[in-house]
Amino acid sequence: MIDSTVQMSELDAHTFRDWSARASGPVLVPVGALEQHGPHLPMGTDAILSTAIATSVAQRTGGLVAQPFTYGYKSQQKSGGGNHLPGTTSLDAATLIGLTRSVTVSLLRQGIRRVVFVNGHYENYQFLYEGIDLALDDLGIGSGDERSVLLLSYWDYVSGDTLGLVYPDGFPGWAIEHGGVLETSLMLHLKPSLVDLERAVQHAAASLPRFDRLPVVPDRTPASGCLSAPAGSDPDKGRLLFDQVVEDLAADIRSEFGLGAVNPARGA
Amino acid sequence: MIDSTVQMSELDAHTFRDWSARASGPVLVPVGALEQHGPHLPMGTDAILSTAIATSVAQRTGGLVAQPFTYGYKSQQKSGGGNHLPGTTSLDAATLIGLTRSVTVSLLRQGIRRVVFVNGHYENYQFLYEGIDLALDDLGIGSGDERSVLLLSYWDYVSGDTLGLVYPDGFPGWAIEHGGVLETSLMLHLKPSLVDLERAVQHAAASLPRFDRLPVVPDRTPASGCLSAPAGSDPDKGRLLFDQVVEDLAADIRSEFGLGAVNPARGA
Amino acid sequence: MIDSTVQMSELDAHTFRDWSARASGPVLVPVGALEQHGPHLPMGTDAILSTAIATSVAQRTGGLVAQPFTYGYKSQQKSGGGNHLPGTTSLDAATLIGLTRSVTVSLLRQGIRRVVFVNGHYENYQFLYEGIDLALDDLGIGSGDERSVLLLSYWDYVSGDTLGLVYPDGFPGWAIEHGGVLETSLMLHLKPSLVDLERAVQHAAASLPRFDRLPVVPDRTPASGCLSAPAGSDPDKGRLLFDQVVEDLAADIRSEFGLGAVNPARGA
Amino acid sequence: MIDSTVQMSELDAHTFRDWSARASGPVLVPVGALEQHGPHLPMGTDAILSTAIATSVAQRTGGLVAQPFTYGYKSQQKSGGGNHLPGTTSLDAATLIGLTRSVTVSLLRQGIRRVVFVNGHYENYQFLYEGIDLALDDLGIGSGDERSVLLLSYWDYVSGDTLGLVYPDGFPGWAIEHGGVLETSLMLHLKPSLVDLERAVQHAAASLPRFDRLPVVPDRTPASGCLSAPAGSDPDKGRLLFDQVVEDLAADIRSEFGLGAVNPARGA
Amino acid sequence: MIDSTVQMSELDAHTFRDWSARASGPVLVPVGALEQHGPHLPMGTDAILSTAIATSVAQRTGGLVAQPFTYGYKSQQKSGGGNHLPGTTSLDAATLIGLTRSVTVSLLRQGIRRVVFVNGHYENYQFLYEGIDLALDDLGIGSGDERSVLLLSYWDYVSGDTLGLVYPDGFPGWAIEHGGVLETSLMLHLKPSLVDLERAVQHAAASLPRFDRLPVVPDRTPASGCLSAPAGSDPDKGRLLFDQVVEDLAADIRSEFGLGAVNPARGA
Amino acid sequence: MIDSTVQMSELDAHTFRDWSARASGPVLVPVGALEQHGPHLPMGTDAILSTAIATSVAQRTGGLVAQPFTYGYKSQQKSGGGNHLPGTTSLDAATLIGLTRSVTVSLLRQGIRRVVFVNGHYENYQFLYEGIDLALDDLGIGSGDERSVLLLSYWDYVSGDTLGLVYPDGFPGWAIEHGGVLETSLMLHLKPSLVDLERAVQHAAASLPRFDRLPVVPDRTPASGCLSAPAGSDPDKGRLLFDQVVEDLAADIRSEFGLGAVNPARGA
Repeated sequence: MIDSTVQMSELDAHTFRDWSARASGPVLVPVGALEQHGPHLPMGTDAILSTAIATSVAQRTGGLVAQPFTYGYKSQQKSGGGNHLPGTTSLDAATLIGLTRSVTVSLLRQGIRRVVFVNGHYENYQFLYEGIDLALDDLGIGSGDERSVLLLSYWDYVSGDTLGLVYPDGFPGWAIEHGGVLETSLMLHLKPSLVDLERAVQHAAASLPRFDRLPVVPDRTPASGCLSAPAGSDPDKGRLLFDQVVEDLAADIRSEFGLGAVNPARGA
Repeated sequence: MIDSTVQMSELDAHTFRDWSARASGPVLVPVGALEQHGPHLPMGTDAILSTAIATSVAQRTGGLVAQPFTYGYKSQQKSGGGNHLPGTTSLDAATLIGLTRSVTVSLLRQGIRRVVFVNGHYENYQFLYEGIDLALDDLGIGSGDERSVLLLSYWDYVSGDTLGLVYPDGFPGWAIEHGGVLETSLMLHLKPSLVDLERAVQHAAASLPRFDRLPVVPDRTPASGCLSAPAGSDPDKGRLLFDQVVEDLAADIRSEFGLGAVNPARGA
Repeated sequence: MIDSTVQMSELDAHTFRDWSARASGPVLVPVGALEQHGPHLPMGTDAILSTAIATSVAQRTGGLVAQPFTYGYKSQQKSGGGNHLPGTTSLDAATLIGLTRSVTVSLLRQGIRRVVFVNGHYENYQFLYEGIDLALDDLGIGSGDERSVLLLSYWDYVSGDTLGLVYPDGFPGWAIEHGGVLETSLMLHLKPSLVDLERAVQHAAASLPRFDRLPVVPDRTPASGCLSAPAGSDPDKGRLLFDQVVEDLAADIRSEFGLGAVNPARGA
Repeated sequence: MIDSTVQMSELDAHTFRDWSARASGPVLVPVGALEQHGPHLPMGTDAILSTAIATSVAQRTGGLVAQPFTYGYKSQQKSGGGNHLPGTTSLDAATLIGLTRSVTVSLLRQGIRRVVFVNGHYENYQFLYEGIDLALDDLGIGSGDERSVLLLSYWDYVSGDTLGLVYPDGFPGWAIEHGGVLETSLMLHLKPSLVDLERAVQHAAASLPRFDRLPVVPDRTPASGCLSAPAGSDPDKGRLLFDQVVEDLAADIRSEFGLGAVNPARGA
Repeated sequence: MIDSTVQMSELDAHTFRDWSARASGPVLVPVGALEQHGPHLPMGTDAILSTAIATSVAQRTGGLVAQPFTYGYKSQQKSGGGNHLPGTTSLDAATLIGLTRSVTVSLLRQGIRRVVFVNGHYENYQFLYEGIDLALDDLGIGSGDERSVLLLSYWDYVSGDTLGLVYPDGFPGWAIEHGGVLETSLMLHLKPSLVDLERAVQHAAASLPRFDRLPVVPDRTPASGCLSAPAGSDPDKGRLLFDQVVEDLAADIRSEFGLGAVNPARGA
Repeated sequence: MIDSTVQMSELDAHTFRDWSARASGPVLVPVGALEQHGPHLPMGTDAILSTAIATSVAQRTGGLVAQPFTYGYKSQQKSGGGNHLPGTTSLDAATLIGLTRSVTVSLLRQGIRRVVFVNGHYENYQFLYEGIDLALDDLGIGSGDERSVLLLSYWDYVSGDTLGLVYPDGFPGWAIEHGGVLETSLMLHLKPSLVDLERAVQHAAASLPRFDRLPVVPDRTPASGCLSAPAGSDPDKGRLLFDQVVEDLAADIRSEFGLGAVNPARGA
């Protein structure tokens, strides 16, 4: 129906049924959050980025993109500033596990054999893992089954070379990359209209203890809500990051699933 | 930051914080599904429609729109054709209840006082209700509290007059309106590029028993996946439906919450 | 042991075992609530009615009646007046889902192949559905299995002709039939000693908004607790309703399960 | 409305509301099971007995009787023969805990201050306890609160003297009293039409190991399903048991709650 | 690696793998609690005792001992003094059920065929039972499967003869044996350095009602926290109890599983 | 009673009650797992290490050590080799969350104001976090409350200097430190009798993909079960690691809670 789309939500069900009967590409599920990202980035940043990456990877692997998870696990102070900040609207663990489990079971029951979760919110990872594991239990899928699920956070695909170019003064570590150069550059590349660098606050990187403390001590989070400043962000770095991650992730998926080099999802 | 948007996902957190400190309008949460809607409508129809309605209502009530729920409860044969149909990717009850509970608690804890769930998938309703009820329990909110939550399905706002115009030969009942004239006309008005009427199948309305049977007897669902045919759909009916529903829902919200007549969310 | 009973609770287990080995009739599970029904009806009305209907249907289909569910989901203002009213003693969703799931699994594991839930409390329906669906998942029962479960609310079996006779001035809609003519007439037919029409309050039908609001605004429920008045109730209408519903439901069950016309459960 | 009843299910809500506003007596919740009890007793025995006892205690303490729990926890081999036996239809732990929690919360929220669970199925006890404990947590009720809940199994009230009379040859222990002299005598006293002593099987008491084994070894349960034979049961023993238990339990409740000696529930 | 140990926690995984491939002995799981036991016994008493017994039984049955459950279900007033007492640190039912279920599934999935739970805390029993039952459901294990699980509380193995020797003046009943002669004597035998009899309080046995009341009435528990005094405890009684229980339990396990008389777990 | 112990399990409840009334030090909860650690380390390694560290920290901060969590979350291939390996006996997420929640609530309800979870198994972290967060919700504890909980994994306290000394050829990253130099050296320092270096397998560090795949591809885990070889482990490195971690963690706790420099838990 919509010839070039890879979004399941834009496809009609009959077209999807035909695709799933013949396709070997995966269904990619982007995972985000509704979370403060400082004054210069929109709160939907995580789903925007994971969806953009999943979409581009789908185009390179003959896959489709399922609806994104629009909410994520609670923001933690050491990775996202904390769940107490206005705008951050979060799920508890049981819900995120259940969401992942339900969607995984539901996709695999339709005959989809390959599902890839593309995570864009640090705190989600372990709960996505548990949801997938429980779904495979539900369906009796064990090692050797042709059905399988991949899980990754997109920043795990940023290469050392890319890091060197994006952070010429040295990479400060993922731990404080919330609302920082990585996310800001990617957004400047992908959705510049939703970024307002003039509102960005320049401040030293947050210095947080080695432990988590609950309830949170709010003062430990910089007033901006970011753990490091976005100084030095630009769309070129964003494009570099995006292209490298998409390329490497698509290559990994093709290799892992034995897919041919060019495999447009719903081709000519 | 994005001056005219009412989407929380597009707003930065500082702007949102300022809005929530002074605003009296609600946060609207659109609820959808990823569900087959026959060969002529996209699988994301329910979230598209509820988001469009919530967005327009937000503009008329000084409100904002939270991220949509992109997955919904299992499709049931008598209202959606059944959960066995390819493309339909669903949540179990515990997950949808948990999603609603988490998001409601999370919004109210930020100081939001008014939340409105705009449902676009028939099967969701009771689970949304339970999620809201549990959230209020969690927060100790009882009758008389200034915080409150509204829940509705948008079709409950279609007036008798509108029904008469949309269904000149008589309204066949909501029960079989899956992929039928209402949804198709609304989509033709709002997202015509995602509708392909040439693929629509014309067939008699489904005749389903008065009971639900599980496991489902697949043959009882028409091959199209729709419970009635979209014959007679057109964008004008869609606009009529949309405008009337939005107008009446916005009026109800303004009246219920004592909001002024014009209250742009983030206007001058 | 008790020759004429169709109640599982009155049968001994050996007799039941013999029945289940040879019977093709269903086990019917009546579902009720403990809920205010105004000043003229007892709080157990829903279980009384669903049990009476299930019992009569069991006699006509060679079935048995399991113990009723004596508590139901929270009363909602638009269908039952609201859960805040004294006497209304309710279950949350997880419990009702679990109850349905446990009982369904337990019955099917014993070799029972056909289970029918006869619902008598509006708010229960979706949670019963989920419980059944999860039970079938637990047991690995999919389409085509000889085991199956039916679910219905008894009022869905009231025919148009019956409605015309019971409501000669026009049917006001199920939405406000809580403690109204239908339930009152049925109780006058089945348990007149538990009805006191002199206590009935005559008032206009409740006018409730199109949305649900939580926490509830108590004043929107009429002081009687009923959503419409029982004026015009009489035992003849009750018998008419009862006989027609039982007849049609029994016919549907016989047809759906291919049962012979006369099949007394435990007859000679 | 029904002047002499103490059953909540038979009372109208307005009468109940008036009672709860002025009464100091408890609401008693009988708890049973749907469980095989050999060839001579009905499967509903546990709810029949606990309801009869609760009813009589209610009359002596100015209390009311809520709807019984009609299903109970899984039958265990050492106390009930095992959950594999036909007719035994059981709940898992989470459901029974949830049922108890929901009903306790719901009663206490209405302003009821005293609830008494009268258990009639051995396996239920710990799950009832947990449900009550969680309910009190939900409501923030701690030591010293005027609201409280009692929990007991009725056989814990059988006195040594009574045991001596009922078991003149020595009491074999509660562990094997499933379908034995106690339950059979009580049923002969209370519901003789549901007992068929001619079908009773006389056999030695079951000799079960000191451990529980799962999955169960079916042969360890006597073919009758009873753990001891009902030989020696008679209605006089039943009356003796019933009267003594009711008297002592009512006395305990009056003493515990400081109720006056005669306090008819709804009397003049 | 550690030649004589039977503790899984002390074995390396390769040695364990080899053992599990050839062994017929069970994995024993000791279950305890962190619970007050009066002024003379340590709070870890229950896990200490169940671990000691499991260890000795493992040595006699060719088995191994898994990590103990170090926390147990809430202390109840009638068996453990109550959950309100300082030091008592407890699990709710869902957690203990989940713990048992997870560990049982995880052991059986590795190819272990025989698991024995050795309970040392009265309140745990039913929740352990449910966890085992759910685990077997998860794995599809029914009657006749070669895999099975035993569950017991160690005091159920104290013989009548032993009781006579330990309580020469008559056994007061298990109900009040919390911190009393049985546990104290066992600890004096097994861990005398953790017992301080000089701190023991001599008082009459607690006299508790036949019901449980929640919230608890703290005064009903003796100030010591014990339900009976440890007067008369001595290490000889402890050795007698320990040896007899271990002997009989090991014999039962060997008999139940058809194990040879001498079967050292990891011997030559 | 046991003068020098800091183990709650070895203390009697009266001594604990007195301590908690006057102490300002924390209760530390060690968290481990029962997990394969290759052929040279025992399966209980994680609880042994976290308990040893917690014990030493307790001695330096006037604290006590609660019972360890003896089981942990499922081993993941990229951090622990995978959950399919023999001996690895794991909890699902809901159970570990529940365990943490129950223990946290139970400790704080007793009047303990400061709890510190010392994690020793990588996969546990997020589930411990969720359990703590839910516990604080249960108790209504928000920012500013004097009660608080710290959570940390002990390796987060290994300093850069220490890393340089332990890994003179460069630190390979925590990701593959399962059964490697860190854990082996610590065990050689703390429990040398449980380590058998002769059984250690020398192999290249595992090279695992950037994604997680489920179900796991077993061949990706080295046959040893370790992700890197323990070559170069020695007890001196273990002592260095242990002393530095304990020192820094104790300092952090004293600083965070404003504790005096020397504060023996139960000293004069």
